[in-house]
Amino acid sequence: MALKTAEQYKHSLRQMNPVAYILGEKVANVSDHPLIKPQVEAVAQTYSLAHQAETMNLLVAKSKLTGGQVNRFTQLFENIADLTAKVKMIRLCAQTTGTCFMRCTGLDAMNATAAITCEIDQKYGTNYHQRALKYIKYVQENDLAVYCGNSDVKGDRSLRPSEQPDPDMYLHIVDRTKDGIIVRGAKAHQSGSLCAHEVLVLPDRDMRQNDKDYAVAFALPNDTKGILNIYTRGPLEDRLLDGIDLGNVRFGKSCPLVIYDNVLVPWDRVFLCGEYEFAAPLLRMFANYHRHSHGGCKAGMGDILIGAAATIADYNGVAGASHIRSKITDMVRMSEVMYGCCLAASTEAERTASGVYFVNPVLANTSKLYESINLPEMIRLLIDIAGGLVATMPSEKDLDNAEVGHLVKKYLKGVADVSTEDRMRMFRLIEYLGFQSRDVVSNIMGGGSPEAHRITLLRETDLEAKKKLAKRLAGIKP
Amino acid sequence: MALKTAEQYKHSLRQMNPVAYILGEKVANVSDHPLIKPQVEAVAQTYSLAHQAETMNLLVAKSKLTGGQVNRFTQLFENIADLTAKVKMIRLCAQTTGTCFMRCTGLDAMNATAAITCEIDQKYGTNYHQRALKYIKYVQENDLAVYCGNSDVKGDRSLRPSEQPDPDMYLHIVDRTKDGIIVRGAKAHQSGSLCAHEVLVLPDRDMRQNDKDYAVAFALPNDTKGILNIYTRGPLEDRLLDGIDLGNVRFGKSCPLVIYDNVLVPWDRVFLCGEYEFAAPLLRMFANYHRHSHGGCKAGMGDILIGAAATIADYNGVAGASHIRSKITDMVRMSEVMYGCCLAASTEAERTASGVYFVNPVLANTSKLYESINLPEMIRLLIDIAGGLVATMPSEKDLDNAEVGHLVKKYLKGVADVSTEDRMRMFRLIEYLGFQSRDVVSNIMGGGSPEAHRITLLRETDLEAKKKLAKRLAGIKP
Amino acid sequence: MALKTAEQYKHSLRQMNPVAYILGEKVANVSDHPLIKPQVEAVAQTYSLAHQAETMNLLVAKSKLTGGQVNRFTQLFENIADLTAKVKMIRLCAQTTGTCFMRCTGLDAMNATAAITCEIDQKYGTNYHQRALKYIKYVQENDLAVYCGNSDVKGDRSLRPSEQPDPDMYLHIVDRTKDGIIVRGAKAHQSGSLCAHEVLVLPDRDMRQNDKDYAVAFALPNDTKGILNIYTRGPLEDRLLDGIDLGNVRFGKSCPLVIYDNVLVPWDRVFLCGEYEFAAPLLRMFANYHRHSHGGCKAGMGDILIGAAATIADYNGVAGASHIRSKITDMVRMSEVMYGCCLAASTEAERTASGVYFVNPVLANTSKLYESINLPEMIRLLIDIAGGLVATMPSEKDLDNAEVGHLVKKYLKGVADVSTEDRMRMFRLIEYLGFQSRDVVSNIMGGGSPEAHRITLLRETDLEAKKKLAKRLAGIKP
Amino acid sequence: MALKTAEQYKHSLRQMNPVAYILGEKVANVSDHPLIKPQVEAVAQTYSLAHQAETMNLLVAKSKLTGGQVNRFTQLFENIADLTAKVKMIRLCAQTTGTCFMRCTGLDAMNATAAITCEIDQKYGTNYHQRALKYIKYVQENDLAVYCGNSDVKGDRSLRPSEQPDPDMYLHIVDRTKDGIIVRGAKAHQSGSLCAHEVLVLPDRDMRQNDKDYAVAFALPNDTKGILNIYTRGPLEDRLLDGIDLGNVRFGKSCPLVIYDNVLVPWDRVFLCGEYEFAAPLLRMFANYHRHSHGGCKAGMGDILIGAAATIADYNGVAGASHIRSKITDMVRMSEVMYGCCLAASTEAERTASGVYFVNPVLANTSKLYESINLPEMIRLLIDIAGGLVATMPSEKDLDNAEVGHLVKKYLKGVADVSTEDRMRMFRLIEYLGFQSRDVVSNIMGGGSPEAHRITLLRETDLEAKKKLAKRLAGIKP
Repeated sequence: MALKTAEQYKHSLRQMNPVAYILGEKVANVSDHPLIKPQVEAVAQTYSLAHQAETMNLLVAKSKLTGGQVNRFTQLFENIADLTAKVKMIRLCAQTTGTCFMRCTGLDAMNATAAITCEIDQKYGTNYHQRALKYIKYVQENDLAVYCGNSDVKGDRSLRPSEQPDPDMYLHIVDRTKDGIIVRGAKAHQSGSLCAHEVLVLPDRDMRQNDKDYAVAFALPNDTKGILNIYTRGPLEDRLLDGIDLGNVRFGKSCPLVIYDNVLVPWDRVFLCGEYEFAAPLLRMFANYHRHSHGGCKAGMGDILIGAAATIADYNGVAGASHIRSKITDMVRMSEVMYGCCLAASTEAERTASGVYFVNPVLANTSKLYESINLPEMIRLLIDIAGGLVATMPSEKDLDNAEVGHLVKKYLKGVADVSTEDRMRMFRLIEYLGFQSRDVVSNIMGGGSPEAHRITLLRETDLEAKKKLAKRLAGIKP
Repeated sequence: MALKTAEQYKHSLRQMNPVAYILGEKVANVSDHPLIKPQVEAVAQTYSLAHQAETMNLLVAKSKLTGGQVNRFTQLFENIADLTAKVKMIRLCAQTTGTCFMRCTGLDAMNATAAITCEIDQKYGTNYHQRALKYIKYVQENDLAVYCGNSDVKGDRSLRPSEQPDPDMYLHIVDRTKDGIIVRGAKAHQSGSLCAHEVLVLPDRDMRQNDKDYAVAFALPNDTKGILNIYTRGPLEDRLLDGIDLGNVRFGKSCPLVIYDNVLVPWDRVFLCGEYEFAAPLLRMFANYHRHSHGGCKAGMGDILIGAAATIADYNGVAGASHIRSKITDMVRMSEVMYGCCLAASTEAERTASGVYFVNPVLANTSKLYESINLPEMIRLLIDIAGGLVATMPSEKDLDNAEVGHLVKKYLKGVADVSTEDRMRMFRLIEYLGFQSRDVVSNIMGGGSPEAHRITLLRETDLEAKKKLAKRLAGIKP
Repeated sequence: MALKTAEQYKHSLRQMNPVAYILGEKVANVSDHPLIKPQVEAVAQTYSLAHQAETMNLLVAKSKLTGGQVNRFTQLFENIADLTAKVKMIRLCAQTTGTCFMRCTGLDAMNATAAITCEIDQKYGTNYHQRALKYIKYVQENDLAVYCGNSDVKGDRSLRPSEQPDPDMYLHIVDRTKDGIIVRGAKAHQSGSLCAHEVLVLPDRDMRQNDKDYAVAFALPNDTKGILNIYTRGPLEDRLLDGIDLGNVRFGKSCPLVIYDNVLVPWDRVFLCGEYEFAAPLLRMFANYHRHSHGGCKAGMGDILIGAAATIADYNGVAGASHIRSKITDMVRMSEVMYGCCLAASTEAERTASGVYFVNPVLANTSKLYESINLPEMIRLLIDIAGGLVATMPSEKDLDNAEVGHLVKKYLKGVADVSTEDRMRMFRLIEYLGFQSRDVVSNIMGGGSPEAHRITLLRETDLEAKKKLAKRLAGIKP
Repeated sequence: MALKTAEQYKHSLRQMNPVAYILGEKVANVSDHPLIKPQVEAVAQTYSLAHQAETMNLLVAKSKLTGGQVNRFTQLFENIADLTAKVKMIRLCAQTTGTCFMRCTGLDAMNATAAITCEIDQKYGTNYHQRALKYIKYVQENDLAVYCGNSDVKGDRSLRPSEQPDPDMYLHIVDRTKDGIIVRGAKAHQSGSLCAHEVLVLPDRDMRQNDKDYAVAFALPNDTKGILNIYTRGPLEDRLLDGIDLGNVRFGKSCPLVIYDNVLVPWDRVFLCGEYEFAAPLLRMFANYHRHSHGGCKAGMGDILIGAAATIADYNGVAGASHIRSKITDMVRMSEVMYGCCLAASTEAERTASGVYFVNPVLANTSKLYESINLPEMIRLLIDIAGGLVATMPSEKDLDNAEVGHLVKKYLKGVADVSTEDRMRMFRLIEYLGFQSRDVVSNIMGGGSPEAHRITLLRETDLEAKKKLAKRLAGIKP
């Protein structure tokens, strides 16, 4: 059971009954809903690739916790090789799905929780670390899909959690009982929440004394009473409902708003509970891990963007033009810079007191900053290479129309040896890559805003050491 | 009648019966169809603003052709002031609609046709120029909405028109009769074709001797027999069909594929017919005019993007953050650079033999190149400022749900003095601005590809003069 | 005398005896010093071009003040055409000299002084405006070269003028006598101070009540007692002293530090004296005018950079390579964007109460921001096109060496029809364009820092109007 | 002797008598000449750091060839750790010297020669590989400073070597004798040639059958008869001759033109001799290694640029300004991206048949492309942060002037606790970093032109694999 198959994953998901509202309607059997199923398929790839001969080396790891093989999406980073393998595994999954496969946030959150709980226990004599390891072992043994509940809705962003007119704008503890804590709040942009078995909730900012009820971390099954998923509406959903003109024909992404409406968390699932000074370290460690994940993911997405650009150039008959080749070269450069920085963030990782390895934050944030600039730029170049049909392609429905179908087919033909249908499919993929908002916005805002990456980058840089170098060269006495 | 009202425009459109297929179905009363109506509304603004006291100075011009007042969207550029007013009028229309109002292409095409036909007649003794002026006078007197039929589908782009396996990949003359010419072919990305009275078709590239049947220009009513409009499918169309979550609540854009299936063009509507060496000048003049139009349009769109960024920063409570202010400053810089270049392209315009003024092509293409880089960048900055909710906003339908509506409303609240509904509306507008593909792709590909702008820019630059300047400074003898 | 010749200018300069220290030595006959002469030559061009048939239309204006013809570098901006002509005149001068010709700052300062003194007089009943007009008329009648004394040395930039430990870090009034005021302080980066007849000193920032002795503006002959010019040391000066390997064989730039060591200013040359709230308007108006000047100047410098790039590509045998053509296209785009914005800043100018026209600040600052990014980028592209010899060219002295001169000549040959000497000259020009620090730093810092341009741009933008546009589209009620 | 000290290095250099012409004069004792000495000092650092406790771990390696410790600048890349250490060693040296320390090109050339000779021998049964290993062992045992003779002067770049009007525009074999080969030609931009013991000459492009006499590689002592060094003239040389206002007070760079005037190469120093199809692989391998070296070097230079920016911000009193902090953050991002990509190019290296490890060329070229864009941009940001005094600083000579020295000192003061002298030194360092052309041009052109990096990047990218990924997602059948 430690390595579920894709089918076992889907089956286990169907056994759960998360509460979900989609476009105003409460929905049952949510993992088979046409708007959710594409991401279930994407997550299923993380199970499937663990069983395929040529990819299992990246997807399967040996765990010290269980002593056996586990899916790498549940593995603690026991050494540098684990971090390097993570980047490569994630690039592979992105290449395979062309979208979000969701398990990175859980992986990153479990590692951050494992590391920081060790520090909390050292200070307070709590036993969060053992709880966390027990939980992670359970996840490993059952090969669960876990996502991280991180982004609070935040209300007025100029105010701290405890200053908000409505105290629920950040998730917080509303009661402590003998069975556990009661929490209330809401988390936005919860990529894949309806495709997961479990959520691991973390605080979303630094907290001070007054905010201590907001300093809380815990894990829960996704169908726990009081957890409500509200589907969020993006572009291109009519395609999924129609089942044609899909672009990405099999995979997709969903990002519900998740509301915690007075939810009970049993004590053995609580990993932070009021120790407010650890909220920031926990968040930051998760965020730095996740920016590292993004590097692998977006290099894989980059491969898709480059492949789509090169293919449509072939289909249009312009693959040899010097400006096309130059633009593809720029796309390669942009994609590889993220991969390079994240591999280096792995090899420059350092061991924490918990034994978990922590990525180099300077290199991980450098990667993320390039992502926020370069992915949009790569999409621009892809559209430039492809041409206006990205936005002005008739539907497959028109191909089927008896009166004009043959004319549409005739006039949308590109080079001789490619069918009109294939050319239309490639344009639809490019449309998807450019206009499916969830991935595009995540390129910019995922893992925190670019400003958050910048603040981290400067904070983690040793400016004083660099000043010394410059002064020495200039002949300035210390 | 020389200045139609918005209602008269809509009424006149309903009198026409263009052939239209939408998502596989033939559609009647097309201008009232929910997927077409938003652009009809946008075009209607060009009529409405001509009757409003504070805007009529930009929208109304005095025509030498009719001797009276005409809508400036039908006016020949009789002087530099006409070109300056055009840029300002277009910026105003874009500010008002936030999308395409369609009449620029016709305006630009009419001017190019008026100018180039004069040159053709000089060489060949033809009477195209009088035909063109007569046609333009008719358009002015009836205040018609004309669009330019320009972008051929092109097939294999490495081949010239006459080399294509299917000779119809560029629109061409298939027969010459006593009543007129018969043409066949198809034009892609025909922004607003279903909102127009007339189409003015131009060739889409340079033509050589062998391509001479492709060197053709003409005008026709939009419901002429044999003209077929195929609606093209873009993102966010489910919103129009639902009537909620619209973003831009009133205006929109459509870009059909228009097929010319053996269409008869009467001789007095033919403005180029085989004089192949004039295909390139005609296309280029149109294209340069249209890049000039883009500058005004995108400065107006820039105002919307900046306004949306500043508003959502207010709503989120972050308007005072230095990085937000810095990003908005960048957006201003990017927007104004297009406006500045196009105003200057107007004041540096030169009179052609026909009396029509031609914009400075170096400055017009400079503007367009900045557009193709800056508009995508402005959208990136807008998303960066707004945050992830651009992609992950529940639907208005969820607000109406009895069980969770109040929770959605509670948790999506921003600053105290703005309602959740207004905040959701602004996020929907931002989603629309970023993910309605027709405008976004047009920012990059409109008025020809960036490579076309670059080629034009270099061709129109006097490198030899600049070399002389450098050599003189270096002390190199001529 | 209203239009001096170049020779008359040089002669008149030699009649003056400004105090100058160059590399530690007090120097007489400074305008003939090899480190100063190149800029004297550049300034002389502004006189010479006023007498040449093909350029006098740009260089000569009709003045309302004198009723006759004046050099446009002394002209008040009496209408939009004056501002448009200014941009074109400055581009011409930059094309001709490839460096700074110095008279723009004086021109811009005289206009700002004329306009703002009118406002001061309105408030306080002072007679600064008449004094200013009298002074400007004197400048016009004698065709004087005036520069603006603007950049205070500033000390600790976190402190206001009156807060500095040393009160002299901003120029200020130290005494008021019956003959005039006594001032003390120092101005940095005084481009061309040793090539001018007169200095017009302006305040360099906003001033408050406590800073009122720093709110001072006045004009003086350049050899007034107490004014000390300290030459500042830049790269490539050994070339001027050697007289070979010059790059720009005739023209150059110098930027002394000018110290005002208790200098008496007669009352009729004082234009601001304690009215602190007018310091900021006066500075800003000057600065906005000067950013406008930069646009013309840098478009002209751009022509040189482009010409040098195209020439060296010819000389190296790579002019036809697609990447070279693409880079030159980018250089054209970058250069023209400044020209376009500044022409538009002219046509969108507005009349002030004084009758002087004021440029559109949004467009002028947009131009300057592109300059600070684009000129460095153009230099990078120029080096990329030219190749490593920009940094690794033997001296002309080596050509003259009997043992190796013939080998140097042999091995530095490019294409067959260009002499090695000419190729070396062009590489030297490119070295000059890239590594003569005064112009390169001015591209970035001239007319105030980029941050100053950004602050101005945002201040001058009507964000509220843009918010309204966005809200209306989103359906948000006002 | 395997690890020379800095003094031993300088002493050994003085024992050699390379032929050198500096500014037209033949010079003896060249390594003590004020224009050469600064780079001798920089190279000496590579010896000195090998003896310092805290840096020897990076500078000293264990060699399989000698079985003992060697300076890492002579080490073959025996494994991935050697490549990772190389990047870190080079960053350290750049941080320490702020300029070129010259030994990278030799290191990279020796490794490329070791690897490719193995392939040549396999095909032709030659014994180049043993010769090469013997040579490298000699270099290791004597800890020699070797530079790579790579950049031919190239003449008309549109012509191949054998097509040039003058056959000597690429270095080539003019005779084969029993003692060795006679070669003629010239190499440009020979960084540090006068600071080295040895030169290792490689071909500079792909060669065809007709070019086979140009396919030649060999090593020679730097004072071999017929090798002539012509010093090349750059900016700021008067500072070195004066000994003040230096900026970088101890280190510098020189880049002679080196002429091979019928030079005899003994057979055992010849490593390629006519096997033209190996010219390109040899060059490319060297070039890819050297782009990898650049990444470390420029990250170290980046540290200096950042340190100078942060220091001058302190000195000016603006360190806390948000725009200053934002610009420094950008500088960090730009610097680290090169370091990250080159570390990753190390860990993704692959073993060649010779046992030498070869860096991942995609990541190494990605780094170099960012360098060519980012280093100029970092310099721009540094100037923006520092301000205009970078270009307009009086000389130290002025400080010493009795009449005005005290005034210069008074007026150039920044914040209270920093002396004017230190502030001037930091501005001089910034001037050096921005306007010493050799390093600045090398940032752009070093390791081949940006176009060469682009071509390599595209050639090394598996586009077909990426197309397959895109097609699979789009549902296109293979």
